[in-house]
Amino acid sequence: MNFPINLATICLYITLANCYIIDPGPRYPATKGEIWPQPKNQTKSDEFFVLKPSNFEFKLTTSSGKCKLLEDAIERYKDIISSTHLIVKKMRKTLDLQGRKKTWLTNENFKGNINVLDVTLNGPCGTKDFPTEDSSENYSIQIGAKRNVLSSDSVWGVIRGLESFYQSIYLADDNLSLRINRTIIEDSPRYSYRGLLLDTSRHFIPLEKIQLTIDAMAQNKLNVFHWHIVDDQSFPYVSEVFPELSASAAYAPVYTYKPDQIKDIIEYARVRGVRVIPEFDSPGHTRSWGVSHPELLTACEGAYALKLGPMNPARNGTFEFIEKLFGEVKGVFADDYIHLGGDEVGFECWQSSSEINDFMKTLNITDNYEALESYYIQKVINLVDKLNYKSIVWEEVFNNGVIIPNATIVHVWKDDWRDTMLHATSSGHHAILSSCWYLDHLESGGDWFSFYECEPNTFSNDPKLRSMVVGGEACMWAEVVDANNVISRIWPRASATAERLWSFVDDDKVEEDELRRRLEEHTCRMNRRGVGAQPPNGPGFCLL
Amino acid sequence: MNFPINLATICLYITLANCYIIDPGPRYPATKGEIWPQPKNQTKSDEFFVLKPSNFEFKLTTSSGKCKLLEDAIERYKDIISSTHLIVKKMRKTLDLQGRKKTWLTNENFKGNINVLDVTLNGPCGTKDFPTEDSSENYSIQIGAKRNVLSSDSVWGVIRGLESFYQSIYLADDNLSLRINRTIIEDSPRYSYRGLLLDTSRHFIPLEKIQLTIDAMAQNKLNVFHWHIVDDQSFPYVSEVFPELSASAAYAPVYTYKPDQIKDIIEYARVRGVRVIPEFDSPGHTRSWGVSHPELLTACEGAYALKLGPMNPARNGTFEFIEKLFGEVKGVFADDYIHLGGDEVGFECWQSSSEINDFMKTLNITDNYEALESYYIQKVINLVDKLNYKSIVWEEVFNNGVIIPNATIVHVWKDDWRDTMLHATSSGHHAILSSCWYLDHLESGGDWFSFYECEPNTFSNDPKLRSMVVGGEACMWAEVVDANNVISRIWPRASATAERLWSFVDDDKVEEDELRRRLEEHTCRMNRRGVGAQPPNGPGFCLL
Repeated sequence: MNFPINLATICLYITLANCYIIDPGPRYPATKGEIWPQPKNQTKSDEFFVLKPSNFEFKLTTSSGKCKLLEDAIERYKDIISSTHLIVKKMRKTLDLQGRKKTWLTNENFKGNINVLDVTLNGPCGTKDFPTEDSSENYSIQIGAKRNVLSSDSVWGVIRGLESFYQSIYLADDNLSLRINRTIIEDSPRYSYRGLLLDTSRHFIPLEKIQLTIDAMAQNKLNVFHWHIVDDQSFPYVSEVFPELSASAAYAPVYTYKPDQIKDIIEYARVRGVRVIPEFDSPGHTRSWGVSHPELLTACEGAYALKLGPMNPARNGTFEFIEKLFGEVKGVFADDYIHLGGDEVGFECWQSSSEINDFMKTLNITDNYEALESYYIQKVINLVDKLNYKSIVWEEVFNNGVIIPNATIVHVWKDDWRDTMLHATSSGHHAILSSCWYLDHLESGGDWFSFYECEPNTFSNDPKLRSMVVGGEACMWAEVVDANNVISRIWPRASATAERLWSFVDDDKVEEDELRRRLEEHTCRMNRRGVGAQPPNGPGFCLL
Repeated sequence: MNFPINLATICLYITLANCYIIDPGPRYPATKGEIWPQPKNQTKSDEFFVLKPSNFEFKLTTSSGKCKLLEDAIERYKDIISSTHLIVKKMRKTLDLQGRKKTWLTNENFKGNINVLDVTLNGPCGTKDFPTEDSSENYSIQIGAKRNVLSSDSVWGVIRGLESFYQSIYLADDNLSLRINRTIIEDSPRYSYRGLLLDTSRHFIPLEKIQLTIDAMAQNKLNVFHWHIVDDQSFPYVSEVFPELSASAAYAPVYTYKPDQIKDIIEYARVRGVRVIPEFDSPGHTRSWGVSHPELLTACEGAYALKLGPMNPARNGTFEFIEKLFGEVKGVFADDYIHLGGDEVGFECWQSSSEINDFMKTLNITDNYEALESYYIQKVINLVDKLNYKSIVWEEVFNNGVIIPNATIVHVWKDDWRDTMLHATSSGHHAILSSCWYLDHLESGGDWFSFYECEPNTFSNDPKLRSMVVGGEACMWAEVVDANNVISRIWPRASATAERLWSFVDDDKVEEDELRRRLEEHTCRMNRRGVGAQPPNGPGFCLL
């Protein structure tokens, strides 16, 4: 028996004269114990320690007493390590390796077992801490020094470090032992905003798939779940002030998100260091709002007669409605930010409407529909400002000249993203990038590589402007996905975005083969934790 | 409450003067009770019958006594109907429709309940019948005549008819009643060979996903499962005469198909009227064979030194090995056909080998490597001929001028397929087409439409040549799929191929909207039977 075939090139056929290469097996064999996304600084030696879950414990020390958040996190990682070990034990049977000798005992790099990881929090731990844009996620790890230590100044840093610690554990080539190498890690993220957008309007995505998505985000150190919760097609958000919205325009009563379900998602995300930012896109993308509240939408005329268009800015009622709705939303969602949308507003309907045109005369902006959009968005921004909400808007809002507060983040998604990033940051705005990370655009397979190559910094050489970019977001628009394929469509493709946003990737030094082998390992690692990611690179398999 | 939003255009906002269109909801709302693939002839009236599973039964009558195959099939469909009804009952609760009046009682099209379907087999039923290339799948259905009857001359026709009967049942707009319309169906397939290739070498596909694939094939009236079971990367087929093949070159011991597991798959397919044809591709695509049997492969020299190439035709042992292996395969797989592969044979290694070149001199074919390939394939074809096996080969075998028996089917897969189809059929060969149905090539979503548009007949106007085409096959090469995404990658895209191959599609009369709505229904129907197909068309949802 000769398992696994985990080298692309095997010298198998040895004749008197030669050793022939046959080359079966996976295209890119998985690495062993490489962390994804790559830490800022890591040194690693060939010396290793063997980890047996039954003899291993985390020891938590905090400067501030009990910290339930981290106790729970440690329990999660203990469970993951145990279930990984169970898989190894099962595999030993199928590989007929039970009772096989512990060959590592005589390996010169074997430096003993690892029995304890000291987890040290040098900062506060509140009972209801939420991650924010200012949260530190820095941490450090030392394995094989006097003590094995994970330490951080923040709970979120500890959580990131626990993930890196778990990822450093690997199954050795003997298929018998779980090992971790001697290593020193000093890690911190390059960008503070590392997001994933999920659209739950074009198709309904069940709660368990949203949880799985968030869990996988934490496995990739992504930290913002951008919930594009409603759109033209359906309104699954159950509002308590306007229950008629989902009652009339969810696809079905079972295809809704109720307040307590949303709370559960937010809590699930919080304990993994993931923020949840809702998007209620307007003034376009609101057809579903109109099913119960047609008065919110513009009644088109002329060539568009008998249709309803974007939100109607001519009526005070529109803004009163939004204020009530967003007031509720602020209470349901915990984050400081709301995404206001503002993309793809067609002007045809406004142009056709006498009510709108009359109103524009009173504003002295006759024929200037960008100005009308500005009027609308400014009113909405003022309104969320009153609610003590900070906001994100799609790039059109900025491009159309809307005067927005400096604190408003511009979300760039169109193809000419470098221009837009330059203009937005030059105008004093923070920006996040999504243009190169649309998960609904796809090619046959392995297309994550183009995601990986997208470097946000390339829009400018000015360090000041570059520093205005707070991060980016991979976007899973749901026209083409539902519960059946959403997970395998996102993962591991969004992992490429995750590494680009966390790690200080030096493009001149990236070795494609090694990168692919690392993602192969990371994909298998996600899958043994139940994610269900698709194969990244071509032929292969996951042993563990 | 106004569920479901199942019309793309809803007149919802009625003012004094006008009725405005809002247009939320799915892009292509599902049809109700439309059969996929479309029957050859169907007339249908608006008159309908209501089906209650508790008051409904199948009554089987055969001209030849007991027929376990059909009794079991009827049980399966009874279960499917019951579980569909359970979903409806559950939904009534969520929709708050319990106790709602049976409004259909006063509908003028309501013609009573349907309590019995007479299932009549007018032909033989053997205990171990296998579907073959000559099997009839014709059937007819009458609903709403004196009796409700499904009848056929063959068990396979009855099985196809049961599927059509089930597909004709739909949930009415009231979300209360399962209905079936008065209808007459006379159905038969356009092509006898309607296949799906699944590659289980590039990634291992677990047995339960293979079963699910075969079940979905039956739901689409596909009838040939082409099992591309081994290839360069891995050899999961467990041979009893050469156990070392999988022992050394499966990805892992758990990633194998053992003889009894294969028997189970074959039986699972048989009772659904699906043939299982294995492919053991050679002389290329055999690197995995060489891990335990390097002597089968050509030892390259010169620029390719130290590599092993395609099978070595210079040695008798090669053919002795294949004869033994295929002798076993013939016993394991029940079908009359084996797929011999023969695609993508690179000549560089043969060209480099002194052993090969010396051998070619003795055959008087110096420098003619196509002739060497011919020599190889002819020996293999003769050998399977002795085993009483008919064969299928990839188009290269024909293109390279190999003399093949008329009974050998040419499998066309390259882009210039019309030329190849013309040449192959003109030379007296049957052909099957795959060129336009490669499931591993993919675009963002909805790309099944190009699959649908591919019409095999367009290669020639000659009815005689057209009649030489026995069908086609959608191909799921597994470089980019594994257990996590194989099902959603195949379905419903292969459904487009299925309708093209079963139905007599009149391209001038296809209405794209209606087609998309039918596939939407069919996808939801597959999903409520556990398939897990991806959304075909853009925004939408499955109520049932």
